[in-house]
Amino acid sequence: MKKGRLISFEGPDGAGKSTQIKRLEAFLEARGFPYICSREPGGTPIGEKLRELILDKRYSEMSRRTEALLYAAARAQHVDEVIRPALEEGKIVICDRFTDSSIAYQGYGRTLGEDVIRALNAFATKGLQPDLTVLLLLDPEEGMRRAEKREALDRLESEAAAFRAKVNRGYLRIAEEEPDRVIYIDAGKDIEDIAAQIRKRMEVFLEE
Amino acid sequence: MKKGRLISFEGPDGAGKSTQIKRLEAFLEARGFPYICSREPGGTPIGEKLRELILDKRYSEMSRRTEALLYAAARAQHVDEVIRPALEEGKIVICDRFTDSSIAYQGYGRTLGEDVIRALNAFATKGLQPDLTVLLLLDPEEGMRRAEKREALDRLESEAAAFRAKVNRGYLRIAEEEPDRVIYIDAGKDIEDIAAQIRKRMEVFLEE
Repeated sequence: MKKGRLISFEGPDGAGKSTQIKRLEAFLEARGFPYICSREPGGTPIGEKLRELILDKRYSEMSRRTEALLYAAARAQHVDEVIRPALEEGKIVICDRFTDSSIAYQGYGRTLGEDVIRALNAFATKGLQPDLTVLLLLDPEEGMRRAEKREALDRLESEAAAFRAKVNRGYLRIAEEEPDRVIYIDAGKDIEDIAAQIRKRMEVFLEE
Repeated sequence: MKKGRLISFEGPDGAGKSTQIKRLEAFLEARGFPYICSREPGGTPIGEKLRELILDKRYSEMSRRTEALLYAAARAQHVDEVIRPALEEGKIVICDRFTDSSIAYQGYGRTLGEDVIRALNAFATKGLQPDLTVLLLLDPEEGMRRAEKREALDRLESEAAAFRAKVNRGYLRIAEEEPDRVIYIDAGKDIEDIAAQIRKRMEVFLEE
Protein backbone atom coordinates (compact mmCIF):
# COMPACT_ATOMS: atom_id res chain seq x y z
CA MET A 1 0.00 0.00 0.00
CA LYS A 2 1.48 3.32 -1.03
CA LYS A 3 -0.45 5.83 1.04
CA GLY A 4 -2.81 6.05 3.96
CA ARG A 5 -6.58 6.14 3.71
CA LEU A 6 -9.07 8.00 5.82
CA ILE A 7 -12.28 6.05 6.51
CA SER A 8 -15.04 7.82 8.44
CA PHE A 9 -18.07 6.24 10.08
CA GLU A 10 -21.12 8.45 10.17
CA GLY A 11 -24.71 8.34 11.33
CA PRO A 12 -26.70 9.14 14.47
CA ASP A 13 -25.91 7.71 17.91
CA GLY A 14 -27.32 4.22 18.23
CA ALA A 15 -26.96 3.30 14.55
CA GLY A 16 -24.19 0.79 15.23
CA LYS A 17 -21.05 2.75 14.28
CA SER A 18 -19.00 1.40 17.23
CA THR A 19 -19.94 -2.20 16.47
CA GLN A 20 -18.98 -1.87 12.82
CA ILE A 21 -15.75 -0.04 13.64
CA LYS A 22 -14.76 -2.97 15.89
CA ARG A 23 -15.49 -5.42 13.07
CA LEU A 24 -13.39 -3.41 10.64
CA GLU A 25 -10.55 -3.23 13.16
CA ALA A 26 -10.61 -7.00 13.57
CA PHE A 27 -10.51 -7.42 9.80
CA LEU A 28 -7.54 -5.05 9.36
CA GLU A 29 -5.76 -6.67 12.30
CA ALA A 30 -6.21 -10.14 10.78
CA ARG A 31 -4.86 -8.91 7.44
CA GLY A 32 -1.91 -7.21 9.12
CA PHE A 33 -2.68 -3.74 7.79
CA PRO A 34 -1.42 -0.80 9.85
CA TYR A 35 -4.30 1.29 11.10
CA ILE A 36 -5.38 3.61 13.89
CA CYS A 37 -8.83 4.29 15.19
CA SER A 38 -9.96 7.63 16.60
CA ARG A 39 -13.12 9.51 17.40
CA GLU A 40 -14.58 13.01 17.06
CA PRO A 41 -14.93 15.23 18.94
CA GLY A 42 -11.94 14.04 20.88
CA GLY A 43 -9.05 12.00 19.60
CA THR A 44 -6.51 14.38 21.19
CA PRO A 45 -6.12 15.82 24.72
CA ILE A 46 -7.38 19.21 23.48
CA GLY A 47 -10.24 17.52 21.61
CA GLU A 48 -11.27 15.52 24.68
CA LYS A 49 -11.41 18.73 26.71
CA LEU A 50 -13.62 20.29 24.03
CA ARG A 51 -15.80 17.18 23.89
CA GLU A 52 -16.45 17.47 27.65
CA LEU A 53 -17.37 21.13 27.23
CA ILE A 54 -19.70 20.52 24.27
CA LEU A 55 -21.55 17.66 25.98
CA ASP A 56 -21.72 19.28 29.44
CA LYS A 57 -25.36 20.02 30.27
CA ARG A 58 -24.32 22.86 32.56
CA TYR A 59 -23.44 24.84 29.43
CA SER A 60 -26.92 24.70 27.93
CA GLU A 61 -26.57 28.38 26.97
CA MET A 62 -24.01 27.39 24.30
CA SER A 63 -25.03 29.00 21.02
CA ARG A 64 -25.27 27.10 17.74
CA ARG A 65 -22.33 28.93 16.24
CA THR A 66 -20.16 28.39 19.32
CA GLU A 67 -20.91 24.67 19.14
CA ALA A 68 -20.07 24.51 15.42
CA LEU A 69 -16.78 26.35 16.05
CA LEU A 70 -15.83 24.01 18.92
CA TYR A 71 -16.43 20.93 16.78
CA ALA A 72 -14.31 22.52 14.05
CA ALA A 73 -11.55 23.33 16.60
CA ALA A 74 -11.49 19.73 17.87
CA ARG A 75 -11.30 18.53 14.26
CA ALA A 76 -8.46 20.90 13.34
CA GLN A 77 -6.40 19.56 16.24
CA HIS A 78 -7.31 15.97 15.39
CA VAL A 79 -6.25 16.39 11.77
CA ASP A 80 -2.93 18.08 12.61
CA GLU A 81 -1.94 15.95 15.58
CA VAL A 82 -3.26 12.49 14.67
CA ILE A 83 -4.82 12.01 11.24
CA ARG A 84 -2.31 13.63 8.85
CA PRO A 85 0.76 12.12 10.55
CA ALA A 86 -0.82 8.63 10.39
CA LEU A 87 -1.83 9.04 6.74
CA GLU A 88 1.72 10.15 5.94
CA GLU A 89 2.98 6.92 7.51
CA GLY A 90 0.70 4.98 5.13
CA LYS A 91 -1.79 3.93 7.80
CA ILE A 92 -5.51 3.43 7.49
CA VAL A 93 -7.22 5.94 9.77
CA ILE A 94 -10.68 4.93 10.98
CA CYS A 95 -12.53 7.94 12.30
CA ASP A 96 -15.74 7.73 14.35
CA ARG A 97 -17.43 10.87 12.91
CA PHE A 98 -15.79 13.55 10.76
CA THR A 99 -16.91 16.58 8.71
CA ASP A 100 -20.21 14.99 7.60
CA SER A 101 -21.37 14.97 11.24
CA SER A 102 -20.94 18.74 11.35
CA ILE A 103 -22.83 19.19 8.09
CA ALA A 104 -25.68 16.97 9.27
CA TYR A 105 -25.88 18.16 12.91
CA GLN A 106 -24.86 21.83 12.70
CA GLY A 107 -25.70 22.56 9.06
CA TYR A 108 -29.06 20.72 8.89
CA GLY A 109 -30.03 19.88 12.50
CA ARG A 110 -29.20 23.33 13.89
CA THR A 111 -30.05 24.96 10.54
CA LEU A 112 -26.78 26.90 10.22
CA GLY A 113 -26.66 25.83 6.57
CA GLU A 114 -24.55 23.33 4.65
CA ASP A 115 -22.34 25.86 2.82
CA VAL A 116 -21.13 27.75 5.88
CA ILE A 117 -20.33 24.51 7.74
CA ARG A 118 -18.47 23.18 4.70
CA ALA A 119 -16.40 26.39 4.55
CA LEU A 120 -15.65 26.24 8.28
CA ASN A 121 -14.51 22.62 7.97
CA ALA A 122 -12.42 23.29 4.88
CA PHE A 123 -10.49 25.72 7.10
CA ALA A 124 -10.34 23.28 10.04
CA THR A 125 -9.13 20.30 7.99
CA LYS A 126 -7.14 22.22 5.37
CA GLY A 127 -9.38 20.49 2.84
CA LEU A 128 -8.85 16.89 4.03
CA GLN A 129 -11.76 14.64 2.99
CA PRO A 130 -12.35 10.96 3.84
CA ASP A 131 -11.48 8.49 1.09
CA LEU A 132 -14.49 6.46 2.16
CA THR A 133 -17.42 7.18 4.45
CA VAL A 134 -19.68 4.48 5.89
CA LEU A 135 -23.04 6.07 6.63
CA LEU A 136 -25.24 4.01 8.96
CA LEU A 137 -28.78 5.35 9.06
CA LEU A 138 -31.67 4.05 11.10
CA ASP A 139 -35.24 5.15 11.15
CA PRO A 140 -34.95 8.11 13.64
CA GLU A 141 -37.42 6.64 16.15
CA GLU A 142 -35.62 3.30 16.18
CA GLY A 143 -32.30 5.10 16.73
CA MET A 144 -33.66 6.91 19.76
CA ARG A 145 -35.00 3.73 21.32
CA ARG A 146 -31.55 2.17 20.97
CA ALA A 147 -29.82 5.23 22.45
CA GLU A 148 -32.19 5.37 25.41
CA LYS A 149 -31.55 1.74 26.24
CA ARG A 150 -27.80 2.26 26.19
CA GLU A 151 -27.04 5.22 28.42
CA ALA A 152 -28.15 8.47 30.01
CA LEU A 153 -28.83 11.01 27.31
CA ASP A 154 -26.32 13.81 26.76
CA ARG A 155 -27.22 17.27 25.48
CA LEU A 156 -27.21 16.36 21.80
CA GLU A 157 -29.07 13.10 22.38
CA SER A 158 -31.82 14.82 24.32
CA GLU A 159 -32.83 16.96 21.33
CA ALA A 160 -36.30 16.44 19.96
CA ALA A 161 -37.37 14.03 17.24
CA ALA A 162 -37.68 16.91 14.78
CA PHE A 163 -33.98 17.57 15.21
CA ARG A 164 -33.13 13.93 14.52
CA ALA A 165 -35.22 14.01 11.36
CA LYS A 166 -33.34 17.11 10.13
CA VAL A 167 -29.99 15.43 10.83
CA ASN A 168 -31.10 12.37 8.89
CA ARG A 169 -32.13 14.54 5.95
CA GLY A 170 -28.69 16.15 6.04
CA TYR A 171 -26.97 12.77 5.95
CA LEU A 172 -29.17 11.56 3.10
CA ARG A 173 -28.37 14.71 1.18
CA ILE A 174 -24.60 14.12 1.57
CA ALA A 175 -25.03 10.50 0.40
CA GLU A 176 -26.92 11.70 -2.69
CA GLU A 177 -24.31 14.35 -3.48
CA GLU A 178 -21.28 12.09 -3.12
CA PRO A 179 -22.22 8.50 -3.96
CA ASP A 180 -18.61 7.55 -4.79
CA ARG A 181 -17.30 8.51 -1.37
CA VAL A 182 -20.30 7.60 0.82
CA ILE A 183 -21.69 4.07 1.26
CA TYR A 184 -25.18 4.47 2.61
CA ILE A 185 -26.22 1.44 4.67
CA ASP A 186 -29.57 0.72 6.30
CA ALA A 187 -28.51 0.32 9.94
CA GLY A 188 -31.49 -1.93 10.59
CA LYS A 189 -29.89 -4.72 8.54
CA ASP A 190 -28.10 -7.69 10.06
CA ILE A 191 -24.78 -6.77 11.72
CA GLU A 192 -22.87 -9.48 9.82
CA ASP A 193 -24.29 -8.41 6.47
CA ILE A 194 -23.25 -4.83 7.13
CA ALA A 195 -19.75 -5.90 8.21
CA ALA A 196 -19.38 -7.98 5.03
CA GLN A 197 -20.49 -5.03 2.86
CA ILE A 198 -17.88 -2.76 4.50
CA ARG A 199 -15.11 -5.38 4.17
CA LYS A 200 -15.88 -5.79 0.48
CA ARG A 201 -15.41 -2.08 -0.10
CA MET A 202 -12.22 -2.05 2.00
CA GLU A 203 -10.69 -4.76 -0.18
CA VAL A 204 -10.55 -2.27 -3.03
CA PHE A 205 -8.29 0.03 -1.00
CA LEU A 206 -6.14 -2.78 0.29
CA GLU A 207 -5.44 -4.01 -3.23
CA GLU A 208 -4.53 -0.59 -4.65
CA MET B 1 -29.46 57.63 23.28
CA LYS B 2 -31.39 55.41 20.89
CA LYS B 3 -29.17 52.37 20.51
CA GLY B 4 -26.16 50.72 22.06
CA ARG B 5 -22.60 51.13 20.88
CA LEU B 6 -19.80 48.61 20.81
CA ILE B 7 -16.39 50.06 21.70
CA SER B 8 -13.38 47.74 21.45
CA PHE B 9 -9.92 48.29 22.89
CA GLU B 10 -7.13 46.72 20.91
CA GLY B 11 -3.38 46.41 20.98
CA PRO B 12 -0.74 44.10 22.45
CA ASP B 13 -0.56 43.19 26.12
CA GLY B 14 1.18 45.90 28.08
CA ALA B 15 -0.01 48.78 25.87
CA GLY B 16 -2.31 50.16 28.55
CA LYS B 17 -5.74 48.88 27.47
CA SER B 18 -6.88 48.09 31.01
CA THR B 19 -5.87 51.50 32.32
CA GLN B 20 -7.72 53.30 29.56
CA ILE B 21 -10.78 51.08 29.92
CA LYS B 22 -10.94 52.03 33.62
CA ARG B 23 -10.74 55.71 32.71
CA LEU B 24 -13.53 55.34 30.17
CA GLU B 25 -15.68 53.48 32.70
CA ALA B 26 -15.21 56.27 35.23
CA PHE B 27 -16.21 58.80 32.59
CA LEU B 28 -19.38 56.92 31.59
CA GLU B 29 -20.23 56.35 35.26
CA ALA B 30 -19.90 60.06 36.02
CA ARG B 31 -22.14 60.93 33.07
CA GLY B 32 -24.70 58.30 34.09
CA PHE B 33 -24.57 56.36 30.83
CA PRO B 34 -25.49 52.69 30.99
CA TYR B 35 -22.56 50.51 30.01
CA ILE B 36 -21.01 47.11 30.52
CA CYS B 37 -17.40 46.08 30.26
CA SER B 38 -16.22 42.66 29.10
CA ARG B 39 -13.12 40.95 27.83
CA GLU B 40 -12.09 38.47 25.15
CA PRO B 41 -11.49 35.59 25.21
CA GLY B 42 -13.78 35.15 28.14
CA GLY B 43 -16.73 37.32 29.08
CA THR B 44 -18.97 34.25 29.53
CA PRO B 45 -18.59 30.99 31.51
CA ILE B 46 -17.94 29.10 28.25
CA GLY B 47 -15.52 31.79 27.10
CA GLU B 48 -13.60 31.68 30.39
CA LYS B 49 -13.21 27.91 30.00
CA LEU B 50 -11.89 28.41 26.49
CA ARG B 51 -9.57 31.18 27.66
CA GLU B 52 -8.02 28.79 30.22
CA LEU B 53 -7.54 26.18 27.52
CA ILE B 54 -5.99 28.61 25.02
CA LEU B 55 -3.53 30.05 27.57
CA ASP B 56 -2.66 26.71 29.23
CA LYS B 57 1.01 25.94 28.54
CA ARG B 58 0.33 22.21 28.89
CA TYR B 59 -1.44 22.39 25.53
CA SER B 60 1.57 23.67 23.60
CA GLU B 61 0.69 21.24 20.79
CA MET B 62 -2.36 23.41 19.94
CA SER B 63 -2.30 24.11 16.21
CA ARG B 64 -2.73 27.60 14.74
CA ARG B 65 -6.09 26.75 13.24
CA THR B 66 -7.38 25.20 16.48
CA GLU B 67 -6.40 28.36 18.33
CA ALA B 68 -8.12 30.60 15.77
CA LEU B 69 -11.30 28.48 15.99
CA LEU B 70 -11.31 28.61 19.81
CA TYR B 71 -11.00 32.39 19.83
CA ALA B 72 -13.86 32.53 17.33
CA ALA B 73 -15.96 30.16 19.48
CA ALA B 74 -15.41 32.30 22.60
CA ARG B 75 -16.38 35.37 20.56
CA ALA B 76 -19.55 33.78 19.17
CA GLN B 77 -20.70 32.98 22.69
CA HIS B 78 -19.76 36.44 23.94
CA VAL B 79 -21.72 38.14 21.16
CA ASP B 80 -24.85 36.02 21.63
CA GLU B 81 -24.90 35.88 25.41
CA VAL B 82 -23.58 39.31 26.42
CA ILE B 83 -22.89 41.85 23.68
CA ARG B 84 -26.02 41.74 21.51
CA PRO B 85 -28.45 41.69 24.47
CA ALA B 86 -26.67 44.72 26.00
CA LEU B 87 -26.65 46.62 22.71
CA GLU B 88 -30.36 45.90 22.32
CA GLU B 89 -30.93 47.48 25.73
CA GLY B 90 -29.18 50.61 24.48
CA LYS B 91 -26.03 50.11 26.53
CA ILE B 92 -22.47 51.02 25.66
CA VAL B 93 -20.44 47.82 25.52
CA ILE B 94 -16.72 48.20 26.19
CA CYS B 95 -14.85 45.16 24.98
CA ASP B 96 -11.23 44.39 25.89
CA ARG B 97 -10.21 42.83 22.51
CA PHE B 98 -12.53 41.83 19.69
CA THR B 99 -12.21 40.68 16.05
CA ASP B 100 -9.17 42.89 15.32
CA SER B 101 -7.16 40.87 17.84
CA SER B 102 -7.83 37.72 15.82
CA ILE B 103 -6.86 39.43 12.57
CA ALA B 104 -3.64 40.78 14.10
CA TYR B 105 -2.62 37.68 16.13
CA GLN B 106 -3.97 34.78 14.07
CA GLY B 107 -4.11 36.40 10.64
CA TYR B 108 -0.77 38.25 10.76
CA GLY B 109 1.11 36.89 13.78
CA ARG B 110 0.39 33.22 13.04
CA THR B 111 0.25 33.95 9.28
CA LEU B 112 -3.13 32.30 8.69
CA GLY B 113 -4.08 35.30 6.54
CA GLU B 114 -6.38 38.26 7.06
CA ASP B 115 -9.17 37.11 4.72
CA VAL B 116 -9.74 33.69 6.26
CA ILE B 117 -9.78 35.15 9.79
CA ARG B 118 -12.23 37.85 8.70
CA ALA B 119 -14.53 35.19 7.21
CA LEU B 120 -14.30 33.05 10.35
CA ASN B 121 -15.19 36.04 12.52
CA ALA B 122 -18.02 37.15 10.26
CA PHE B 123 -19.54 33.73 11.02
CA ALA B 124 -18.75 33.94 14.76
CA THR B 125 -20.18 37.45 15.24
CA LYS B 126 -22.93 37.27 12.57
CA GLY B 127 -21.25 40.35 11.10
CA LEU B 128 -21.18 42.49 14.26
CA GLN B 129 -18.45 45.15 14.07
CA PRO B 130 -17.37 47.67 16.74
CA ASP B 131 -18.70 51.20 16.28
CA LEU B 132 -15.38 52.47 17.56
CA THR B 133 -12.03 50.80 18.17
CA VAL B 134 -9.28 52.31 20.30
CA LEU B 135 -5.97 50.88 19.12
CA LEU B 136 -3.11 51.35 21.57
CA LEU B 137 0.22 50.52 20.00
CA LEU B 138 3.61 50.61 21.62
CA ASP B 139 6.98 49.99 20.16
CA PRO B 140 7.08 46.11 20.39
CA GLU B 141 10.18 46.05 22.62
CA GLU B 142 8.72 48.57 25.02
CA GLY B 143 5.50 46.51 25.19
CA MET B 144 7.41 43.38 26.15
CA ARG B 145 9.32 45.17 28.90
CA ARG B 146 6.04 46.33 30.38
CA ALA B 147 4.47 42.86 30.16
CA GLU B 148 7.50 41.24 31.81
CA LYS B 149 7.34 43.62 34.73
CA ARG B 150 3.68 42.93 35.30
CA GLU B 151 3.29 39.16 35.50
CA ALA B 152 4.50 35.68 34.56
CA LEU B 153 4.31 35.27 30.80
CA ASP B 154 1.54 33.10 29.32
CA ARG B 155 1.83 31.16 26.07
CA LEU B 156 0.99 34.06 23.75
CA GLU B 157 3.15 36.50 25.69
CA SER B 158 6.17 34.24 25.52
CA GLU B 159 6.23 34.32 21.71
CA ALA B 160 9.28 35.83 20.07
CA ALA B 161 9.85 39.46 19.10
CA ALA B 162 9.33 38.57 15.43
CA PHE B 163 5.80 37.48 16.27
CA ARG B 164 5.09 40.75 18.07
CA ALA B 165 6.31 42.71 15.09
CA LYS B 166 3.95 40.79 12.78
CA VAL B 167 1.02 41.45 15.13
CA ASN B 168 1.86 45.15 15.18
CA ARG B 169 1.95 45.22 11.38
CA GLY B 170 -1.48 43.58 11.35
CA TYR B 171 -2.89 46.20 13.69
CA LEU B 172 -1.37 49.03 11.66
CA ARG B 173 -2.88 47.56 8.52
CA ILE B 174 -6.36 47.50 10.09
CA ALA B 175 -5.95 51.12 11.22
CA GLU B 176 -4.98 52.12 7.68
CA GLU B 177 -7.92 50.24 6.14
CA GLU B 178 -10.57 51.60 8.50
CA PRO B 179 -9.58 55.08 9.72
CA ASP B 180 -13.19 56.02 10.54
CA ARG B 181 -13.68 53.12 12.93
CA VAL B 182 -10.19 52.82 14.41
CA ILE B 183 -8.46 55.52 16.48
CA TYR B 184 -4.77 54.70 16.44
CA ILE B 185 -3.02 56.03 19.56
CA ASP B 186 0.67 55.95 20.40
CA ALA B 187 0.58 54.02 23.69
CA GLY B 188 3.80 55.71 24.81
CA LYS B 189 1.97 59.02 25.26
CA ASP B 190 0.85 60.37 28.61
CA ILE B 191 -2.02 58.38 30.17
CA GLU B 192 -4.11 61.49 30.79
CA ASP B 193 -3.67 62.73 27.22
CA ILE B 194 -4.79 59.36 25.85
CA ALA B 195 -7.83 59.29 28.17
CA ALA B 196 -8.81 62.80 27.05
CA GLN B 197 -8.51 61.81 23.39
CA ILE B 198 -10.80 58.79 23.94
CA ARG B 199 -13.33 60.85 25.92
CA LYS B 200 -13.47 63.40 23.14
CA ARG B 201 -14.38 60.74 20.62
CA MET B 202 -16.93 59.22 22.99
CA GLU B 203 -18.73 62.55 23.29
CA VAL B 204 -19.77 62.18 19.67
CA PHE B 205 -21.63 58.96 20.44
CA LEU B 206 -23.16 60.28 23.60
CA GLU B 207 -24.62 63.28 21.82
CA GLU B 208 -26.13 61.29 18.95
